[in-house]
Amino acid sequence: MRITVCLTDNRPDPWVSGLRAALPGADIENWEPGSPPADHAVVWMPPQAFIDDQLALRGLFNIGAGVDALLGLKLPPQTRIVRLDDAGMSVQMAEYVCHALIRHFREFDAYEVEARAGRWTFRKPRSRGDFPVGIMGLGVLGERVAKAVAQFDFPVNGWSRTPKAIDGVRNFVGAESFDDFLAASRVLVCLLPVTPETRGVLRCENLLKLNGGKPGGYVINVARGAHLVEDDLIPLLDAGQLAGATLDVFEQEPLPGDHPYWRHPKINVTPHGSARTLRDESIAQIAGKIRALESGVGFDALPGVVDAGRGY
Amino acid sequence: MRITVCLTDNRPDPWVSGLRAALPGADIENWEPGSPPADHAVVWMPPQAFIDDQLALRGLFNIGAGVDALLGLKLPPQTRIVRLDDAGMSVQMAEYVCHALIRHFREFDAYEVEARAGRWTFRKPRSRGDFPVGIMGLGVLGERVAKAVAQFDFPVNGWSRTPKAIDGVRNFVGAESFDDFLAASRVLVCLLPVTPETRGVLRCENLLKLNGGKPGGYVINVARGAHLVEDDLIPLLDAGQLAGATLDVFEQEPLPGDHPYWRHPKINVTPHGSARTLRDESIAQIAGKIRALESGVGFDALPGVVDAGRGY
Repeated sequence: MRITVCLTDNRPDPWVSGLRAALPGADIENWEPGSPPADHAVVWMPPQAFIDDQLALRGLFNIGAGVDALLGLKLPPQTRIVRLDDAGMSVQMAEYVCHALIRHFREFDAYEVEARAGRWTFRKPRSRGDFPVGIMGLGVLGERVAKAVAQFDFPVNGWSRTPKAIDGVRNFVGAESFDDFLAASRVLVCLLPVTPETRGVLRCENLLKLNGGKPGGYVINVARGAHLVEDDLIPLLDAGQLAGATLDVFEQEPLPGDHPYWRHPKINVTPHGSARTLRDESIAQIAGKIRALESGVGFDALPGVVDAGRGY
Repeated sequence: MRITVCLTDNRPDPWVSGLRAALPGADIENWEPGSPPADHAVVWMPPQAFIDDQLALRGLFNIGAGVDALLGLKLPPQTRIVRLDDAGMSVQMAEYVCHALIRHFREFDAYEVEARAGRWTFRKPRSRGDFPVGIMGLGVLGERVAKAVAQFDFPVNGWSRTPKAIDGVRNFVGAESFDDFLAASRVLVCLLPVTPETRGVLRCENLLKLNGGKPGGYVINVARGAHLVEDDLIPLLDAGQLAGATLDVFEQEPLPGDHPYWRHPKINVTPHGSARTLRDESIAQIAGKIRALESGVGFDALPGVVDAGRGY
């Protein structure tokens, strides 16, 4: 069995050596133009030239949860895309979202300004009942985030394509319930995959529906920059309709140094690090899936196999 | 039945009117010198002159969880001190501690410095296995904090006077296990009551034992300022032995404007707000306990009754 590794913007060597250790029988190399066709590939943003070489490819293993960068590729008919399935990412997402939520809800930024000036002042505590949190996307990541938020006694709404029963989470299903979901949510957390339906979902028209149309909504985007219509955000913040945003993903990454998001007082920017790929966990997961496939298990029995029609 | 309210540093009127609404048969007034003796009192830092008037007092209800300010008072022999039992405080503590922990673990402060300069840079992710969290005190507040931290997959140690079985928490019991508890913990969270045994527990000698004696320990104090030997902290931070501290409580409150904690780059100060008393929840809880006592229930059947010998 031959496995090839093609990682744009990532150092391939530790992946190659880790996969070799996990799959001792396999022939595992970093891809170069002219490499022989492989049975499986481990990739991050591979070029079409890579795919064009891979006529025998069965599994195309992405080292992230979002596979939008792969969906534009022309694949051989037998090739299936497999995304990471948690692999240590869901707990990082839960951490990141809870941190941003608590920081906003408890007004820790305002307290910090006072503290740096040496002032001991109180703000009136806010009621968590007034801060319902809406989670868009209830997959492996969204479910974990929803449970973590619910544990802090915030009301939690979850929006999903198909019904999902999660303790403590009010489920809104499908496009027809989207407006009700937005109206019932004050803090909006985006964990959706990018598909033609979800691209630009964080746009003015929808953001105005948050919190029953009242001011004070807050946006946390940890999915993809393509979900947010970037030009719509700052006018809503400056008008006071939205109270703030924590953004980890952007249309263009790295976010250009002169982008207004970096220094806007109501926006917190992080460099696409809400959930980093953990190499050891990811290698173990991908190796396990390759072993299963090679022992005769079908793709349909593996978690994380992408439905090309659905787009994730 | 007569109830008197004596709240230093708090507006008494909403407490008086709230208690009147919750206990319609009772005679409830704000205390003034010369007021007639009451059956129960609702207090925050009452002066000894107040207690001297209260010869018939049965229940002395504190509007906080920490009763250290009451233990120096000379009480009539039949009077029992009752502290708040959660009343909406444990979720606030869990929020505050998880926020401080995640902020430190994920290095969000360092990311923010880069972000404000418009720089997209990564730091190597740290392993949560390297950040065991030690919770000192496993009462109502400590248990909730421990569970919240465990949910983010950090190793959690809990130190308590008596054994406590909490899922996901390694329990260290009593003075003889204290050094082992410190050695096994990197982030130390203080939720202890102030007693002669716990006063000054956060002192150089003990803080040096954190993290097996290796540098990198972190202190979160949400209990009382008396737990921390204030002069010991900054030298440990400046030497690099401790990585930082988040402090909500201080020997002198308000913390003086010229205190070095306010502006130290490794210290985050908040003004004793980690868990604010929620008036409605507290009134409902105190009124419920008074109703129970008046219907013949004994103090020993109520949660939150202070054991004067134990000190909490």
